[in-house]
Amino acid sequence: MQVVRTIPELRKIVDQWRKDGLRVGLVPTMGGLHSGHLSLVQTVKSISDKTVATIFVNPAQFAPHEDFDTYPRDEKTDSDLLIGEGTDLLFAPDTEVMYPGGSDTTLNVGKIGTLLEGEFRPHFFSGVATIVTKLFMQCLPDVAVFGEKDYQQLCVIRQFSRDLDIPVEIVGCPTLREPDGLAMSSRNRYLSPEQRQIAVSLSRALEIAAAKFSQGIEIEMCEMMAKQELLNAGFDSVDYIAIRDAETLLSLTYASTSARILGAATLGKTRLIDNLSV
Amino acid sequence: MQVVRTIPELRKIVDQWRKDGLRVGLVPTMGGLHSGHLSLVQTVKSISDKTVATIFVNPAQFAPHEDFDTYPRDEKTDSDLLIGEGTDLLFAPDTEVMYPGGSDTTLNVGKIGTLLEGEFRPHFFSGVATIVTKLFMQCLPDVAVFGEKDYQQLCVIRQFSRDLDIPVEIVGCPTLREPDGLAMSSRNRYLSPEQRQIAVSLSRALEIAAAKFSQGIEIEMCEMMAKQELLNAGFDSVDYIAIRDAETLLSLTYASTSARILGAATLGKTRLIDNLSV
Repeated sequence: MQVVRTIPELRKIVDQWRKDGLRVGLVPTMGGLHSGHLSLVQTVKSISDKTVATIFVNPAQFAPHEDFDTYPRDEKTDSDLLIGEGTDLLFAPDTEVMYPGGSDTTLNVGKIGTLLEGEFRPHFFSGVATIVTKLFMQCLPDVAVFGEKDYQQLCVIRQFSRDLDIPVEIVGCPTLREPDGLAMSSRNRYLSPEQRQIAVSLSRALEIAAAKFSQGIEIEMCEMMAKQELLNAGFDSVDYIAIRDAETLLSLTYASTSARILGAATLGKTRLIDNLSV
Repeated sequence: MQVVRTIPELRKIVDQWRKDGLRVGLVPTMGGLHSGHLSLVQTVKSISDKTVATIFVNPAQFAPHEDFDTYPRDEKTDSDLLIGEGTDLLFAPDTEVMYPGGSDTTLNVGKIGTLLEGEFRPHFFSGVATIVTKLFMQCLPDVAVFGEKDYQQLCVIRQFSRDLDIPVEIVGCPTLREPDGLAMSSRNRYLSPEQRQIAVSLSRALEIAAAKFSQGIEIEMCEMMAKQELLNAGFDSVDYIAIRDAETLLSLTYASTSARILGAATLGKTRLIDNLSV
């Protein structure tokens, strides 16, 4: 696996692949890799000739009170995991490469970025959209994969890529889960053993709410019961539990063809999110 | 000259050129072509193998009270002029192609978009940046040229292209002028013969102010005198006359390596802008 840290190096290698007629796939991550990320690499490898992974903890998507400083950073471990999957190239820039002095442009993703996570993390999706656009422009992959674990992020990336006509195919991959159902997340490592036991109730509450909704119980009731379950289980607060249109993330309408249930809740200092198809 | 109206058609042709190793240059315009635009085509032809011109009057960069409805639209004349210059491809999409239902993403270009024109046209540069990014993504040219007549626009395009790592080289071209010095503009055709005579005082006032500044007269005095000259000449109002850092468009500092004088003033219903190197 080649490791590059500058945009010209990245472009030189990818340009050559493109000239050779190879299809290039990108897996953008913030490092802290777990099996979920590795499944994204496997997906890219199955649909591309060359696989580029990136690890960069993007300051623009953290608010000052969030966990930017403590977010897991261990390039050696990440790198070994990527080599194990047969990744061709690791792009690991530093902050000065990604945000040189004077950087001032951001993307505004519109309505979809203001909902759900956007209510609690107002600058989050603008930060995500800006860095993902930059990675797309730096690498110009044919395809990029993102996990459904960050479902709203996937919707946002689809939205701005379509709106700006970015010529990159966006592929979503199913969430990987621990045996008890907890969605894999780089932030799970923050959890104490006791919190880890409580954490599983997030996926369980979403499953139960989805089942109730399918049985015809009204949305507000399903959402409220799930919230109460999380608080009973030991979560400190619940930001939202919401059953929404799976594409727009707005309230369901008669035009909705599929639905998604999404939730966010906090356990100590750790904020967890999860979602399921309904 | 091929004329295409959809993004897939555009991409098919440009992709083939790229595969053939040809360098592709783009001239984005809103139509209403004059010799200034044609000089951009000539510049692109001199530095590229294939020339793509676009004409699309972008609704996103007009405010409701501005001249979107009356902006000159004459595809036949524009098309003939482009053929005369040896343009290879005209991309002339309609609004539904450029902004399909649900489009919601915009670029925020930061500080530089809030200055000068940005004070008087608050959404203008976001609209410009969004459409130019879309055109770049649709065509993926190697190089794109823009006139210095819209100097702040050129600075904004350089800024967001650099910030987002868009792999398109940006080239600025000198303003073309009428024999008396009036900068060529699609909006000059709005002027009555009497207004046309008054209009020339914009470039003259900028020239005089630039000369005074070079003689050591302080900036505020140069700007104020130029404003007064325009009002005396018959302009109805002056939005700004400003001598600024030629790159950041902020006030000059000891770090500034070059300066630019920019002005905007209104004559009847027509708002004219111009600028000069100082």
